[in-house]
Amino acid sequence: MKAVVLLSGGLDSTVCMSVAADAGHELYPVSFLYGQRHNREIECAKKIAAYYGVNKHLIITANMDAIGGSALTANIDVPEGDENRKDIPVTYVPARNLIFLSYALGYAEVLDAGKIYIGVNALDYSGYPDCRPEFIQQFQKLADYTTKAAVQDRKIIRVETPLITLTKAEIVKLGMQNKAPLHLTTSCYRGGDKACGRCDSCLLRLRGFREAGIEDPIEYDFH
Amino acid sequence: MKAVVLLSGGLDSTVCMSVAADAGHELYPVSFLYGQRHNREIECAKKIAAYYGVNKHLIITANMDAIGGSALTANIDVPEGDENRKDIPVTYVPARNLIFLSYALGYAEVLDAGKIYIGVNALDYSGYPDCRPEFIQQFQKLADYTTKAAVQDRKIIRVETPLITLTKAEIVKLGMQNKAPLHLTTSCYRGGDKACGRCDSCLLRLRGFREAGIEDPIEYDFH
Repeated sequence: MKAVVLLSGGLDSTVCMSVAADAGHELYPVSFLYGQRHNREIECAKKIAAYYGVNKHLIITANMDAIGGSALTANIDVPEGDENRKDIPVTYVPARNLIFLSYALGYAEVLDAGKIYIGVNALDYSGYPDCRPEFIQQFQKLADYTTKAAVQDRKIIRVETPLITLTKAEIVKLGMQNKAPLHLTTSCYRGGDKACGRCDSCLLRLRGFREAGIEDPIEYDFH
Repeated sequence: MKAVVLLSGGLDSTVCMSVAADAGHELYPVSFLYGQRHNREIECAKKIAAYYGVNKHLIITANMDAIGGSALTANIDVPEGDENRKDIPVTYVPARNLIFLSYALGYAEVLDAGKIYIGVNALDYSGYPDCRPEFIQQFQKLADYTTKAAVQDRKIIRVETPLITLTKAEIVKLGMQNKAPLHLTTSCYRGGDKACGRCDSCLLRLRGFREAGIEDPIEYDFH
């Protein structure tokens, strides 16, 4: 079966890709140039797609920077990480996962793919509303009303979220088990050549590797 | 109140814009360059936005042609119109309204706008699944789970569909009543300098004007 995989080039989406590969699906990764400051993740995504030998890696230009409102797409500083933060942080990109899933749904319909994989995670997540199971469930309901495939031909495109209930440490372990190319991934919001090690995303990643008892194979600025 | 208005440059979205203007909202029109063959509609949208004297007209580049699968975005001919057609036609663009609404939702959140206007129409429509009330209702449910505004701050962004139950003739009459600039609109899928008068979209428009007893102010190729 064909599966569309949302592949950012980060840890979670790469482990998610490894799960889809492990299930024997024909992989159709999709990445987005959405005006993110850390657009070097696209280069990582390309290497990860190549690692899996996919036939096609679709890169969509989707200028969310036109919308702005986020430290990742507008002229707002990426803050230092804070693991005790309660609010949704400024790195939240309005409607990002909704936009990503919407494109993925259209692409899955064109490909006649039965599944969309997305590496959202509700446990060790950053407080983003569009990473929660409730969001995904509602998206699935909506998808069934959206496509010609579903409405006319009764073909359901299923959204798969294999990481949604895992801790970051469990995600790292799952990636190791599936031989996911974790060394090719990037997580840092700041998008420098080396990871900053201090933003929310770096802190979550580092803690995940630490708790998994595995050394993170990527380079950090403080090393 | 601020309102985001999805403005394609077509008849329906322009009448929809006139309804939002009539309600006294501060208008924030959004248009998309999505790889459509009839991208001259963007020039129409710009003139319509100027007619309403808006502060900002956001034009988003969203390359849906990367996805393809439609006569409007891929190398597939636009067919002659057929008012008796039962199937969803090849001019259907997979997930288009979902992608449009997703961007609009993110933009509304950034603007702190309370409403999104979309000129979908379920009666004289072209058989597109994402123009139906069920689709809009499900999108509204999903929206309430998606944004930081809704989840953290309990601010609901409402999707308004003032045309959804109207006939094309009623839409024309409503536009006239609201002094909508119908002469600036374009509907033709083929995107030539003059409307072709033969595609689905032209046929629907022409019938609407005829049934409303009003002369269509735009130029057609057969005139």
